[in-house]
Amino acid sequence: MALTKRVLVFDAYGTLFDPHSIIPTCEHAFPQRGKELSHLWRTKQLEYSWLRSLMGQYEDFWQVTESALVFACKTLHLPCDAPTRSSLMDAYLSLEPYPDAREAMSTLANYPMAILSNGCPSMLQAVVQRAKFESFFSHVISVDEARIFKPSPRVYRLVEEKLAVDRKAIAFVSSNSWDAIGAKAFGFWSCWVNRSDSCRDELGFGPDLSVRRLTELVGTFPAV
Amino acid sequence: MALTKRVLVFDAYGTLFDPHSIIPTCEHAFPQRGKELSHLWRTKQLEYSWLRSLMGQYEDFWQVTESALVFACKTLHLPCDAPTRSSLMDAYLSLEPYPDAREAMSTLANYPMAILSNGCPSMLQAVVQRAKFESFFSHVISVDEARIFKPSPRVYRLVEEKLAVDRKAIAFVSSNSWDAIGAKAFGFWSCWVNRSDSCRDELGFGPDLSVRRLTELVGTFPAV
Repeated sequence: MALTKRVLVFDAYGTLFDPHSIIPTCEHAFPQRGKELSHLWRTKQLEYSWLRSLMGQYEDFWQVTESALVFACKTLHLPCDAPTRSSLMDAYLSLEPYPDAREAMSTLANYPMAILSNGCPSMLQAVVQRAKFESFFSHVISVDEARIFKPSPRVYRLVEEKLAVDRKAIAFVSSNSWDAIGAKAFGFWSCWVNRSDSCRDELGFGPDLSVRRLTELVGTFPAV
Repeated sequence: MALTKRVLVFDAYGTLFDPHSIIPTCEHAFPQRGKELSHLWRTKQLEYSWLRSLMGQYEDFWQVTESALVFACKTLHLPCDAPTRSSLMDAYLSLEPYPDAREAMSTLANYPMAILSNGCPSMLQAVVQRAKFESFFSHVISVDEARIFKPSPRVYRLVEEKLAVDRKAIAFVSSNSWDAIGAKAFGFWSCWVNRSDSCRDELGFGPDLSVRRLTELVGTFPAV
């Protein structure tokens, strides 16, 4: 495997940026309930991205994220007025990168790197800029123009189109087991970043590599 | 709305048949862990049905159910050997109907009624026969021939094809909020059976009617 010829493509939410870094904002709005809200919010965000894709009723990730927040607050009986909802949504624009993501990006900076994310362009631009990650990525690709979410093959195909490279030249990296599997099913070489020591999803395909931290990738992809 | 002209189409798992009626079997296999196993198993079963559909990697609901069981047991550290797995899977063939489902079926028996379910034909035949529900349904429609799961519009379209009626003549009934919504988005009149007083999913569409029990349908659809 000609590792040195591969383009590294990273998922954003959960892989580079921690969706639960909004917990302090949730906690400020709803004391003692922040963690619970953050987890249900994230669970429904993913569920809605799959369901809307499957229904053929795409709306962008900002809207999906807001719908998931509304559901989560109702279910947890948290009164979420317009200013509170607005401040929680804004928190999604300043998600923190994982410490191992920052370290890995710096070390891998000589590689051609890109992002492929469910996020709409404005959401991605905000988190990438805030983390000062712009210089690392030649392309920040949003699913938005395919109008469907991961793990649809139409999304992974965007990478081939935008980067003008064959799928065999892509090394795809995600912390979401089903995303690493979807990418593998499409034909990418695929790595699952399993920070929480979870079990792999049973979806008929496995990633080529599992690591605990993004920094472990550094050894896998030697300096070019 | 010409209610009397409608064909009633029911979801199976969660609507007519209780997926958690397997808890005693789970409990027998793994004392004190039955409920936890049943809930994670069901959660992953649905998740895998959505993900495989979206990946374009269909496998039938029996296989999806078994994959979800494998994941759930691994995650919960429950040692599931081949005979145990087999007995748990067999329990899925004898799910109990909800008491209100049995009562409603008897009362609505003069209506044209059908089932539309993710289950593969052999799974559906087993639960319908065991409940002695065969006489109630003119059609038991499986998604299997569309090779995709709910809430894909391709699935709801099977009802039009099999029953040779327009979507406007269908009253679709499901306890799964996202299924009632998917059916509504497709163009069915749709009813959500919300037994657990849950919040409705925020997916841009709402059911035409929400009830707490299937027996409440009886008043909505007067005798033909």
